[in-house]
Amino acid sequence: MGSTPNGIKIVGLAPELNHSFYGRDIISVGQFSRPDLTYIMGVADEMRSVVRRVGATDLLKGHILANLFYEPSTRTSSSFIAAMERLGGSVIPIHGVQYSSVSKGESLPDTIRTLECYADVIVLRHPEVGASEVAARYATKPIISAGDGVGEHPTQGLLDLYTIYHELGTLDGLHVAMVGDLKHGRTVHSLARLLRLYDARLTFVSPEILRLPEDVKRELAAAGRIVTETDKVEDVIAAADVIYVTRVQKERFADLDEYEAVKDYYVITPKIMARAKEHMVLMHPLPRVGEIHADVDNDPRAAYFRQMENGMYIRMALLAAVLGKA
Amino acid sequence: MGSTPNGIKIVGLAPELNHSFYGRDIISVGQFSRPDLTYIMGVADEMRSVVRRVGATDLLKGHILANLFYEPSTRTSSSFIAAMERLGGSVIPIHGVQYSSVSKGESLPDTIRTLECYADVIVLRHPEVGASEVAARYATKPIISAGDGVGEHPTQGLLDLYTIYHELGTLDGLHVAMVGDLKHGRTVHSLARLLRLYDARLTFVSPEILRLPEDVKRELAAAGRIVTETDKVEDVIAAADVIYVTRVQKERFADLDEYEAVKDYYVITPKIMARAKEHMVLMHPLPRVGEIHADVDNDPRAAYFRQMENGMYIRMALLAAVLGKA
Amino acid sequence: MGSTPNGIKIVGLAPELNHSFYGRDIISVGQFSRPDLTYIMGVADEMRSVVRRVGATDLLKGHILANLFYEPSTRTSSSFIAAMERLGGSVIPIHGVQYSSVSKGESLPDTIRTLECYADVIVLRHPEVGASEVAARYATKPIISAGDGVGEHPTQGLLDLYTIYHELGTLDGLHVAMVGDLKHGRTVHSLARLLRLYDARLTFVSPEILRLPEDVKRELAAAGRIVTETDKVEDVIAAADVIYVTRVQKERFADLDEYEAVKDYYVITPKIMARAKEHMVLMHPLPRVGEIHADVDNDPRAAYFRQMENGMYIRMALLAAVLGKA
Repeated sequence: MGSTPNGIKIVGLAPELNHSFYGRDIISVGQFSRPDLTYIMGVADEMRSVVRRVGATDLLKGHILANLFYEPSTRTSSSFIAAMERLGGSVIPIHGVQYSSVSKGESLPDTIRTLECYADVIVLRHPEVGASEVAARYATKPIISAGDGVGEHPTQGLLDLYTIYHELGTLDGLHVAMVGDLKHGRTVHSLARLLRLYDARLTFVSPEILRLPEDVKRELAAAGRIVTETDKVEDVIAAADVIYVTRVQKERFADLDEYEAVKDYYVITPKIMARAKEHMVLMHPLPRVGEIHADVDNDPRAAYFRQMENGMYIRMALLAAVLGKA
Repeated sequence: MGSTPNGIKIVGLAPELNHSFYGRDIISVGQFSRPDLTYIMGVADEMRSVVRRVGATDLLKGHILANLFYEPSTRTSSSFIAAMERLGGSVIPIHGVQYSSVSKGESLPDTIRTLECYADVIVLRHPEVGASEVAARYATKPIISAGDGVGEHPTQGLLDLYTIYHELGTLDGLHVAMVGDLKHGRTVHSLARLLRLYDARLTFVSPEILRLPEDVKRELAAAGRIVTETDKVEDVIAAADVIYVTRVQKERFADLDEYEAVKDYYVITPKIMARAKEHMVLMHPLPRVGEIHADVDNDPRAAYFRQMENGMYIRMALLAAVLGKA
Repeated sequence: MGSTPNGIKIVGLAPELNHSFYGRDIISVGQFSRPDLTYIMGVADEMRSVVRRVGATDLLKGHILANLFYEPSTRTSSSFIAAMERLGGSVIPIHGVQYSSVSKGESLPDTIRTLECYADVIVLRHPEVGASEVAARYATKPIISAGDGVGEHPTQGLLDLYTIYHELGTLDGLHVAMVGDLKHGRTVHSLARLLRLYDARLTFVSPEILRLPEDVKRELAAAGRIVTETDKVEDVIAAADVIYVTRVQKERFADLDEYEAVKDYYVITPKIMARAKEHMVLMHPLPRVGEIHADVDNDPRAAYFRQMENGMYIRMALLAAVLGKA
């Protein structure tokens, strides 16, 4: 715990919070209260400090993570591996399950119950919505979802929230703009749902056909958040404290002329950034393919690589917390 | 060493036994004497106790396992990785050798002699019968077979034997029934051959066309074991101390009507289990695809997931033993 | 540092050399001075001594290597993994990047900048010439090339040089013959370019169409080396201190008759070895497919498996050096 690098004191965390994550599954951003988030981000700050000072700890020495990826994701799987290794733990990397007992027809529950014989915690990436919940129902060891289909990707949501907090020192009173494909982007849904817990104003920037789903909008409205929708980044660039960019894929458009007409509205260039606030943060879950120009990379407000690094700290915090060692 | 969790004292092990595994290859169940098995199961008990108490040891710190899988097997490879990591050692995971120097035409002996330059012990899974023996002939470091083709799978045989021992507290005086495809199942052959060393009565339950091979039957007869064959589980369910189930694959039948006629004889349901002894053990090497009903999973006699866990302890024992650290 | 196993004292290394590798990328054999090479080989000797005595060290405990292989290479990737693990460090193995964000179109610089958020050093194998240099340009953490296309393979060059040094106790005054496909073999080019720094006489043995490229020959000539070309091993076998064999691939020949006519000139047999010096060394980068007969393997001059082992020591030396821990 202690204070964040930004000097923001994390207060009022009762010691028993420390135990509230022990043995828990991490399946959905919906499971977190505001104190939960404060706690995890505080632990992530501690992890950053340890890594910066000495590289690693022995906190999870003797513990094993089964990193079970049914679909490839170099970024997320590497982040979890690094997180476990920097905590002194070990990893069973299972990244090609297309070539495994799965291909012999084994059910997900059986695979999970087998792996928990070997490991202390299981990270699961699965192409089907709800797979993490199924896994958690059968497992006695903690399951951490690394994304299931178009459903949740809770650790991405947490790292995005933590990046805003770490970059700007607060999560309240901010104007957050989310840009691009807001319909299919699970990272957008996860972050938006986390932000409902904070005093945030949200602007969603997308083509008409890629608008945020109604249920997410309803959830935000129910929490009292102010939500605006528009279709050009330039409408919000000067006001936003956070611009969170995702990709607009050509394949989503039935009419390619429509794609051509709007695509430049969602590309961040140095020219666009010139109109942004001096203190704001430009984020992207990566990989990017052209939606943020490389010339923006050296802009101090461009936080997407720091965002990756934060992912490791958040995952360190979660691993330590669910194993009762945070 | 010491006593097992069941309170069975392991006695009469001379200290030099401790060294009889040092530098040895683990290639075939045929290589073990009864004292060898007593020793390895005793070490496995120790490993269980260490893992349960503190998660891991530093016994193999600084040692490296090359986990060389020419064909995929998530279960077995994960089990060996976990075993090495819980002993404090490290792993070189080589799981996609179809994409490797092998595809450049390198011979198995050259691959083995290269890997032993990097590692202290090599676990080998290979699609061809006899590959482990070839590897062992060329290697100066210990080779542990993780299965070669339809041939041996000695560590599976050991973990199965150990599971019976651990569940029932003895290996003598038991009635063991093996069910399913007894012709092709190498785990059945390995376990049956190990049981020849004990005062076991064996019943083999399979369709006519999937009977146990004659050579295995002869080996059991030569050792003085009583062997019976039948084609229905219900013939043996009330008498058996152990039911070891394997899959009957539709593809094995030329005549599908024949398959349809018999398939239900080999499916374990709660109704079948109601007729089994109160103290018995239901095993399966996994993966299963329907041959044990999920409703049986919570039956305390259903040991297949404990069997998986035992696999890790047996592999820890073997790794420590061949590296002279047991 | 200290002396080599051959008793050759490594002298005159100022302590500050220790720091000249810190934070450096390892991209090309052209980047090394003779003192650099002396230094790295001295550290490799130390690594050998540590591994032989105690198996491993904790020198890089808490450090993480991202092992990023865009094309498969079991040998090289396993060697780096073993090197990092024997130094007490951890590895993020990324060996199937065809199934990753790369396949989502991410650029190499973005992949590298992501991975350096998690890892302390990145080893890169890439199919395109110059990829390592691109990676190094964007990375703030050290990049070690594990080969890029037909370009460089600097760590192979270093381990080959180190093997000659370790086997013969010197690198000066030697007659080195390189045999086989000298046109396409990047290991040949790397070793030849390193040898330009030493008082070596070089004979290149290949079919006419697989001669060493002109630019490498010019580089050797500019350094004052004596270079001879021939097309039969037997022309040089009696005089050579080193025979470095590579494969002559049938596919390189437009006219298969031509291949059949010459192929036996490049196969090393016991009969050929009978004419070689008593103290000389036979090397091969492996994998081999017939160009050195298996009957030669037990010849004490056959060093190709010791060469593999040396690869691990060289890579340990490089990892420790670039991370400032040598």
